[in-house]
Amino acid sequence: MPGTPRDVLAYLDENRERFVSELVEFCRFSSISAVPKYAADVRRCAEWTARHLNAIGVQATVEETAGHPSVVGEWLKVPGAPTVLVYGHHDVQPVDPLDQWKTGPFEPTVRDGRLWARGASDDKGQILAHIKSVEAWLKAAGRLPLNVKFYIEGEEEFGSRNAPAFVQEHRERLACDIVVVSDGFQFAKGAPAITCGMRGVALYEVVLHGPSQDLHSGVFGGSVSNPAQALAKLLSALVDGDGRVQVPGFYDDVAPLEAWEREEYARLPFDEKVYLAGLGVSAPFGEKGYSTLERRWVRPTCDVNGIWGGYQGEGTKTIVPAAAGAKISFRLVPNQIPERIGPALRNFLGDRLPPGIGMEFKEWNAKGAIVYGRDHPAIRAGARAVEAGFGVRPVFIREGGSVPIVNWFKSVLGADSLLLGWGVPDAQVHSPNENLWLDEFHKSTRACAHLWAELARV
Amino acid sequence: MPGTPRDVLAYLDENRERFVSELVEFCRFSSISAVPKYAADVRRCAEWTARHLNAIGVQATVEETAGHPSVVGEWLKVPGAPTVLVYGHHDVQPVDPLDQWKTGPFEPTVRDGRLWARGASDDKGQILAHIKSVEAWLKAAGRLPLNVKFYIEGEEEFGSRNAPAFVQEHRERLACDIVVVSDGFQFAKGAPAITCGMRGVALYEVVLHGPSQDLHSGVFGGSVSNPAQALAKLLSALVDGDGRVQVPGFYDDVAPLEAWEREEYARLPFDEKVYLAGLGVSAPFGEKGYSTLERRWVRPTCDVNGIWGGYQGEGTKTIVPAAAGAKISFRLVPNQIPERIGPALRNFLGDRLPPGIGMEFKEWNAKGAIVYGRDHPAIRAGARAVEAGFGVRPVFIREGGSVPIVNWFKSVLGADSLLLGWGVPDAQVHSPNENLWLDEFHKSTRACAHLWAELARV
Repeated sequence: MPGTPRDVLAYLDENRERFVSELVEFCRFSSISAVPKYAADVRRCAEWTARHLNAIGVQATVEETAGHPSVVGEWLKVPGAPTVLVYGHHDVQPVDPLDQWKTGPFEPTVRDGRLWARGASDDKGQILAHIKSVEAWLKAAGRLPLNVKFYIEGEEEFGSRNAPAFVQEHRERLACDIVVVSDGFQFAKGAPAITCGMRGVALYEVVLHGPSQDLHSGVFGGSVSNPAQALAKLLSALVDGDGRVQVPGFYDDVAPLEAWEREEYARLPFDEKVYLAGLGVSAPFGEKGYSTLERRWVRPTCDVNGIWGGYQGEGTKTIVPAAAGAKISFRLVPNQIPERIGPALRNFLGDRLPPGIGMEFKEWNAKGAIVYGRDHPAIRAGARAVEAGFGVRPVFIREGGSVPIVNWFKSVLGADSLLLGWGVPDAQVHSPNENLWLDEFHKSTRACAHLWAELARV
Repeated sequence: MPGTPRDVLAYLDENRERFVSELVEFCRFSSISAVPKYAADVRRCAEWTARHLNAIGVQATVEETAGHPSVVGEWLKVPGAPTVLVYGHHDVQPVDPLDQWKTGPFEPTVRDGRLWARGASDDKGQILAHIKSVEAWLKAAGRLPLNVKFYIEGEEEFGSRNAPAFVQEHRERLACDIVVVSDGFQFAKGAPAITCGMRGVALYEVVLHGPSQDLHSGVFGGSVSNPAQALAKLLSALVDGDGRVQVPGFYDDVAPLEAWEREEYARLPFDEKVYLAGLGVSAPFGEKGYSTLERRWVRPTCDVNGIWGGYQGEGTKTIVPAAAGAKISFRLVPNQIPERIGPALRNFLGDRLPPGIGMEFKEWNAKGAIVYGRDHPAIRAGARAVEAGFGVRPVFIREGGSVPIVNWFKSVLGADSLLLGWGVPDAQVHSPNENLWLDEFHKSTRACAHLWAELARV
């Protein structure tokens, strides 16, 4: 099987300036999905994307959802070869606070080697790198080495609300052997990354009920259990002083961390002081025996996302609150079974109720972690493509959060996802002055071009 | 020293019907202090009260405050005899929900032996009992056996906001040997009570700060301390499973419970099942080794009055909250020194902060408990008067909440307070269908008449 033709790479080099000008054009659309008044801009952006795909030879259409439209396209002319689905999004984050932008968010400007615009990195620059690499193959080689599909949604920055239904409805058109998700980050500039796994999540809510209404804490205090204090007892029992979750059985199924991962993470250019300073935190805390990156990526954890009860206003109100509640979430790692967490948590909390306190328990939702070994064919292909495009071997990382679309692709299409990311950590995505390093953009188009050749081999 | 003249008691008996009709008149004023549109009604009620006092021979005036007016009056014609200040209030609680009243809250109605009206028990009926007893002495005996002053404020149901300043400003006119506060309850109908003490209170707020803003709990969770969980740890440490406050030194100064008190409380007609059912609580909880009444009245305690932090809305939000906070209050008993609680609490909490969590600590206010021995001359005089008026010996109880006015009278006027209460627990004060048993009203006027003779002896 041949590699990437020289003509394809030459085409990429020769058309750099045009690619940048097309990215500028792409970034002019104020396709803010979360703000209703931009709905027409989101639609125009979808139409531009579909037109652009058609112009390079990919059959593409704008497809409606219950919200903003998606773009779906395909080039399927290599029977027997694998089919790759490229996922990304054409919508962008809101732009407030507007006065902090050095140049307008929708007036893309090249300055100091970067393109400054909302969406430059997240996700227009990343998706356009894939499109341009397909163009290079089709124009310079007359063909791609495999079949390519695109699914470019318009609501990723608004929670991908309609994506699950869309994937389900269009499952035949989106059917593929592997999904390529390019909506992430390099680990650091010059350290492109392949994300091999992401934690799952399980979400619960507990409300403790005591007296039927708030009581005067002078008249009644000391004679009945206080729901806020009962809640504190329950929540404080969840995690011990060593950062270990205390719910029985919680660690039973946890896949142990592999030696190569520990070594890989330890080698990453991660500066804990810079990390903590960025969060405004003076010291780390987490499970004993693990590094900060391990705690974030490969170890399960429990966080209280919110608590409430009684009087929260200015000054004082001397009551025993009638009720108090909390949102509790767990991040899950490979082999943990989400369905086992809820009942275990419920029992754990229920066993600790003081006299006179009743418990209401809600399960919101739960989904398991996903992990791919470094030897997964798509991961290996991706690694070779990244190395060829960027000139350095990628680092293998994980993601602490979940990427729900990956779960949907797995469950509906039966396809694994290769998670790439061309942005750099200081790209200011979701913030004022979002930007994209143009040299990284060009490297990423090369990496994408190599990716088709590499994935064709697997 | 003579007792209460027969003529005085006869006068009370002969004028029962008129007293009720005057109470009806008093209760017609919609003197709701908390609702601004009733300001004129509160004022008219104050004017009626002052006029009424003057009519019976007590020199009274309406005195302005920064809010609703007070009434102050005096009859001071027994040089060398003690001076008693009667404290009460002419304002009333709001009346919502209005549709639950069987008859209008300001259309006083006699039905089934009770007068139904807002303010009938709290506090117009109680204050009028004192006024009528003074009238009986002055009309039937031509004199009182001691000097009497009245301070009838107009904002008790709105937090007595201007009372501290008022007492301070009028301290010479209000100067007295003893205060009689009639704004409470019998322990049960037919079990009139004298309140010998009330707990103090100390109020604090703690806010724990972690990251400089809410963090994504997937990306960052497990690597930094969670302020909501840190708060839970702190709060759960405050009180142990036996209901004992764990702040070092907290019990050092606590006055032990006297044997007679334990016996007295054990004899009270207190039905714990009824008590708990009224609160909607299935089981009691409190300090081990003490009864529910003891826990409420004579033992110190700690309650969390409110907690907050992170996401409290519907559904889920996967964050590590930037901060979490709580309102913490202690009820204090005799000999505990409020000024010692704050620093001890601050240290206790500060010692338990996990890595990366900062603490903000506020002291709101604190005041000590007050207690009078059963052998306090005013308590003994009050007990004899109650027995003479009601035909039963009063029970000696305490109050779990604080009565701030009592602290102010002590600190500004240097006077102890005799806490009486003629209402019954089912008088529906602060609720629809407030009422006053007329037989109890008449007994209370007799007890008041006896009180002047008894207090004159001390």
